Amino acid sequence: MINQLITQIQKKKAPVVVGLDPMLKYVPKKLLEAAFQEYGETLEGAAEAIWQFNKGIVDATYDLIPAVKPQIAMYEQFGLPGMSAFKKTVDYCKEKGLVVIGDVKRGDIGSTSEAYAVGHLGKVTVGSQAYSGFDEDFVTVNPYLGSDGIQPFIEVCKKEKKGIFVLVKTSNPSSGEFQDQKIDGKPLYELVGQKVAEWGEQCMGDSYSNVGCVVGATYPEMGKVLRKIMPKTYILVPGYGAQGGAAKDLAPYFNEDGLGAIVNSSRGIIAAWQSEKYASFDGTTYADASRQAVEDMIADINSIF
Amino acid sequence: MINQLITQIQKKKAPVVVGLDPMLKYVPKKLLEAAFQEYGETLEGAAEAIWQFNKGIVDATYDLIPAVKPQIAMYEQFGLPGMSAFKKTVDYCKEKGLVVIGDVKRGDIGSTSEAYAVGHLGKVTVGSQAYSGFDEDFVTVNPYLGSDGIQPFIEVCKKEKKGIFVLVKTSNPSSGEFQDQKIDGKPLYELVGQKVAEWGEQCMGDSYSNVGCVVGATYPEMGKVLRKIMPKTYILVPGYGAQGGAAKDLAPYFNEDGLGAIVNSSRGIIAAWQSEKYASFDGTTYADASRQAVEDMIADINSIF
Repeated sequence: MINQLITQIQKKKAPVVVGLDPMLKYVPKKLLEAAFQEYGETLEGAAEAIWQFNKGIVDATYDLIPAVKPQIAMYEQFGLPGMSAFKKTVDYCKEKGLVVIGDVKRGDIGSTSEAYAVGHLGKVTVGSQAYSGFDEDFVTVNPYLGSDGIQPFIEVCKKEKKGIFVLVKTSNPSSGEFQDQKIDGKPLYELVGQKVAEWGEQCMGDSYSNVGCVVGATYPEMGKVLRKIMPKTYILVPGYGAQGGAAKDLAPYFNEDGLGAIVNSSRGIIAAWQSEKYASFDGTTYADASRQAVEDMIADINSIF
Repeated sequence: MINQLITQIQKKKAPVVVGLDPMLKYVPKKLLEAAFQEYGETLEGAAEAIWQFNKGIVDATYDLIPAVKPQIAMYEQFGLPGMSAFKKTVDYCKEKGLVVIGDVKRGDIGSTSEAYAVGHLGKVTVGSQAYSGFDEDFVTVNPYLGSDGIQPFIEVCKKEKKGIFVLVKTSNPSSGEFQDQKIDGKPLYELVGQKVAEWGEQCMGDSYSNVGCVVGATYPEMGKVLRKIMPKTYILVPGYGAQGGAAKDLAPYFNEDGLGAIVNSSRGIIAAWQSEKYASFDGTTYADASRQAVEDMIADINSIF
């Protein structure tokens, strides 16, 4: 799967991923009213609104981008109808040829991680049949439980040719509280990074591993160090744009081959129509605003090289 | 919610929780066949089988126990029908007066943790309405992202009178890989434990906090230290039974008031009918085997005092 992601990045000259993290406040009034008219002000209505909103953005941007990253929490908050909108979004993006990174941050002890891995990346056996539950291409994984919580994901990745991104250094303000703590003089995130590099050796694509990692755009100095610790690990970089990360800071996340990182923007793309920068757009042209924001982001990221 | 959990524990004299982590291989043939007859060998069929299986166990044990802990991964692996079985299980257990601990191990950056908290413990706003998504009483939370990933859960707990259990020291073999790393001479899990105690002060019940923690039964020496660091924190203890933890080792997890810990068993209860110890039961009496196993577990745990 990492080979496929890299091919798409190179083909589209766009080391970017659009975060499909819809909130009802981003959805234009007309779309929202149409969904509520059909389903009422219900969980079903909310799920329909975010699905239609996503569809508009995907239709307007899929030819420009290699991948999307739906954040499952934004769907899970709407209960079962929300989960259904998540699945519809995943399926639709795959139909459009996009690589889908499920931002699910799962992770548990062995047998339980296996169930998550099977449900999101693999196939579950039911009698004589096998079914995909959510069927993303990659998922994000939390490493706090250690190797035996990660290994089941890797086994499923090997079998199904899928991939994971393991949280190493997250983009949020208090990520340092535990992740930056020094162990024998080195921060915990470096130790996790070393493990990610080791885990990745088991599951290599051509030049990069199917075991990637997450390092926030908001900590470029740490990104620089982590790039060296994990030379064959693709870095998924959240925190660009709305969270404060700037393109000029992101050069150290890439290798000399111009590969090795993919930068995410969520709010900056999907809620572009509500921002001052794209004030010429409105609710009826929200998807065009997202397209413009994607084009601007690609140009901005490519200015690094 | 912690008050309600303690009341139930005292009333039933049972500091135990039954882990509803169904796997198809635990489901008696007759139940499985009935589900497949109705829905085929499909995700819907699997979901129906685990739901009916759960219902049997809950009906046979609810009068003995204060709480259940469904592990969402075991449902999520069956996709949308599985999530529906999870919700049915949560709702049914609440109808039966049980406290429901959703073992979801979620955790993300602030705005995303808020969505998880709202979806699992709170209410999400849709237009002029508000809805519960999954509506557990407690959920388990992963602390790797730090305070700003935990705080949104605490805010929802305050508002909705719910609770969380934060992972501190997990029961799996490789939990030490990161959790035991020494920081200024103290293991990471102690630092997380200190934070849990601090977070908990914001959200107190009468004698214990609504912010609990998870410490595996498989590490009793660490449980002893953590009990002291977090005197007002309820400890959810996985790893008893099938994973190897024994009652005699669990005394240090409790306070002198006989409270402060609740011990989970999953496989040992729900798959009791398949074990040698309960060989007198079979597939037609699997729920009775679970009842017997619960009675034996309660007696075993109470032998500590």
